[in-house]
Amino acid sequence: MNIIDIINKKRNKLELTREELEYAFNGYIKKEVKDYQMSSLLMAICINDLTDQEVFDLVDIFIKSGDTIDLSSVSGVKVDKHSTGGVGDKTTLIIAPIVASLGIKVPKMSGRGLGYTGGTIDKLESIPGFKVNLTKEEFVKELNDIGMVVCSQTDSLVPLDKEIYTLRDVTATVESIPLIAVSIMSKKIASGADKILIDIKAGKGALVKTEHDAKLLRDLMIRIGNKYNKEVNCIISNMDIPLGICVGNALEVAEAAEILDGRVKNNLYDLSLEIASNMISMGKGISIVAARDEAIEAINSKKAYNKFMEFVSYQKGDIESMVISDKKIEIAATKSGIITFIDAYKVSEVSCKLGSGRLTKDDVIDSTVGVFLNKQVGDSVQVGDIICTIYYNKVKDDFDIAKAFTIQ
Amino acid sequence: MNIIDIINKKRNKLELTREELEYAFNGYIKKEVKDYQMSSLLMAICINDLTDQEVFDLVDIFIKSGDTIDLSSVSGVKVDKHSTGGVGDKTTLIIAPIVASLGIKVPKMSGRGLGYTGGTIDKLESIPGFKVNLTKEEFVKELNDIGMVVCSQTDSLVPLDKEIYTLRDVTATVESIPLIAVSIMSKKIASGADKILIDIKAGKGALVKTEHDAKLLRDLMIRIGNKYNKEVNCIISNMDIPLGICVGNALEVAEAAEILDGRVKNNLYDLSLEIASNMISMGKGISIVAARDEAIEAINSKKAYNKFMEFVSYQKGDIESMVISDKKIEIAATKSGIITFIDAYKVSEVSCKLGSGRLTKDDVIDSTVGVFLNKQVGDSVQVGDIICTIYYNKVKDDFDIAKAFTIQ
Repeated sequence: MNIIDIINKKRNKLELTREELEYAFNGYIKKEVKDYQMSSLLMAICINDLTDQEVFDLVDIFIKSGDTIDLSSVSGVKVDKHSTGGVGDKTTLIIAPIVASLGIKVPKMSGRGLGYTGGTIDKLESIPGFKVNLTKEEFVKELNDIGMVVCSQTDSLVPLDKEIYTLRDVTATVESIPLIAVSIMSKKIASGADKILIDIKAGKGALVKTEHDAKLLRDLMIRIGNKYNKEVNCIISNMDIPLGICVGNALEVAEAAEILDGRVKNNLYDLSLEIASNMISMGKGISIVAARDEAIEAINSKKAYNKFMEFVSYQKGDIESMVISDKKIEIAATKSGIITFIDAYKVSEVSCKLGSGRLTKDDVIDSTVGVFLNKQVGDSVQVGDIICTIYYNKVKDDFDIAKAFTIQ
Repeated sequence: MNIIDIINKKRNKLELTREELEYAFNGYIKKEVKDYQMSSLLMAICINDLTDQEVFDLVDIFIKSGDTIDLSSVSGVKVDKHSTGGVGDKTTLIIAPIVASLGIKVPKMSGRGLGYTGGTIDKLESIPGFKVNLTKEEFVKELNDIGMVVCSQTDSLVPLDKEIYTLRDVTATVESIPLIAVSIMSKKIASGADKILIDIKAGKGALVKTEHDAKLLRDLMIRIGNKYNKEVNCIISNMDIPLGICVGNALEVAEAAEILDGRVKNNLYDLSLEIASNMISMGKGISIVAARDEAIEAINSKKAYNKFMEFVSYQKGDIESMVISDKKIEIAATKSGIITFIDAYKVSEVSCKLGSGRLTKDDVIDSTVGVFLNKQVGDSVQVGDIICTIYYNKVKDDFDIAKAFTIQ
């Protein structure tokens, strides 16, 4: 067996055996298979797809590449959540405190930036001091102590996914239904929750571009969950326009705090409520409607906000010291009318170019930059009104962001 | 512009612009585009193909990545030759001396191993002292002095091809019609000959598996030649069974010398005559039949053999000191009958695993190992007859080579 034959096989649209997948992926961990060979194989998979059997085998290989977390010592129902990542998606930072404040355990391991979209961990690292790397023991302890935890996937948990995720990010191999399913489900299964809610983003700004693909991904993840006796529910949410009004790492943390504080009610608030309601429903065995009432009450009573602050402090974050760049470019409308569309993909591309994302594995993220949307879809604007603000640091450029706005 | 968008575009089957191709390929030379990104792009090209316009742009980008050779100071017609590389293909070592001994200039730059097949340069390096790297000046001088030269592509000539060729070799991205055409034609055009004969191998042991693909490649290369006012002719030869009776670097050099010495007449001899005849016909403007007579006479008179020895000496090779491993495994027939087929691909795979080829960029070739075919297609064998001999060195294994033989 050798890696070139294996890549050739997938290039020729043939099914790989369990042994071949082990050879390629375990070989990659051992550095016997090189970066440039794995990226070639990943591209062949992106274009030629994987069968269900290949996906099941790969999930198992991913899980067995490291430890798994045993949450049996944590009382209560453990409900995990995952989002396939959209532009400006900071829902984890909002829903985890809501759900945990209602007594349901939320054990959440998150990822870093994938493609143009920043990951939750990148966002949390905007908070000075915030500790994103926890040991298994710290993970379980925090879950017992405060009912929620959001940290970086530990090095010992599905290490293969971490390696592959980083490589996919910089080789244009992120947009693959089976690879997305393997990545998400291996982590969710290994991190020990009983029930898993997955928010699949569909739209221009998301990894999954169409409703059709979103449904393929949903069905595949439910089939994987069945193999492991995990209850998996999915919601599919639109991602054509940015979620909320901030894109960029520190900007998004600040926005999440405002939502939890009950000060902002926008499409981000709505989606956060929907996800939280589903998790509460799964965790408590109550209706979505009853669960939604509890979620709203958690925000209004500040229980959720306080849980967020408790969580940030627990992980040593000093949110008061978080920095958003003070260098900004304000973009004015060049025509009057109603904003009918804001291209999420374009906004995320600009944010990425400003420094909030990675183009190669070694790029360092600048958490202080990003884009603030002064106007949203549905707003009326006059020529000269500020429609958005670019927060820049090293790269001073507006990257033609005005083109992201459709004004009619 | 960034590399991820460019890879994504090709993954989505879209045509890349000249600027995008320059960004990707020139960026690779400058190391701004990484190995793992280029291999991902190459795999997307392998599966999703290139348009003619992309191919023409890429040939131009390849040529402009380095110097070109000006052969105007060399008198007479310059006819170059290229083979797409088959198992046991050592025709260059045979035809160049034949053609040069008849007064036609043969300026030939060759490559290293691609996939399972060794390159001419790897074969020549089996000869102790043989100098494969020449400067442009040395190249022109040798052509003037003895009428032929075979050397490694100089570093300054199409450097991009050298980089891409090495990467394709280890990422299962060699079997791409447009990438093969770009690689061959950019080198042939840059190295300055007036006329170019290309021997396209088709079959199991070759880069191009089918007659259909071979014709696509031929037509594409002729179209590229037209763009640069070069006369391009192609012959398509079968590669399902090994060419000659030796596979492995030193073994193949020894075999080439025997053919030139007139001692062996097999399928390698036949093909060498066909290629030489075509080149002589192009070079002298005479019929193929007349050209063939001249080629046979060059062998019979030892003019071609002497030219080969002159060439080896000129490039400092000491052929008497060439080593073939003395460790061998003889493989016996396990049934009696007629050999109806020898799987060239399987033989080359075994030879590669013995050490005669590369699986990663950094592998070092062992020139002393390989496979000698004691019996050929059409031979009658009894149980126990030796059908082939494995010359091994560090890796002692027969890799089930008996399976390459079909005995009926």
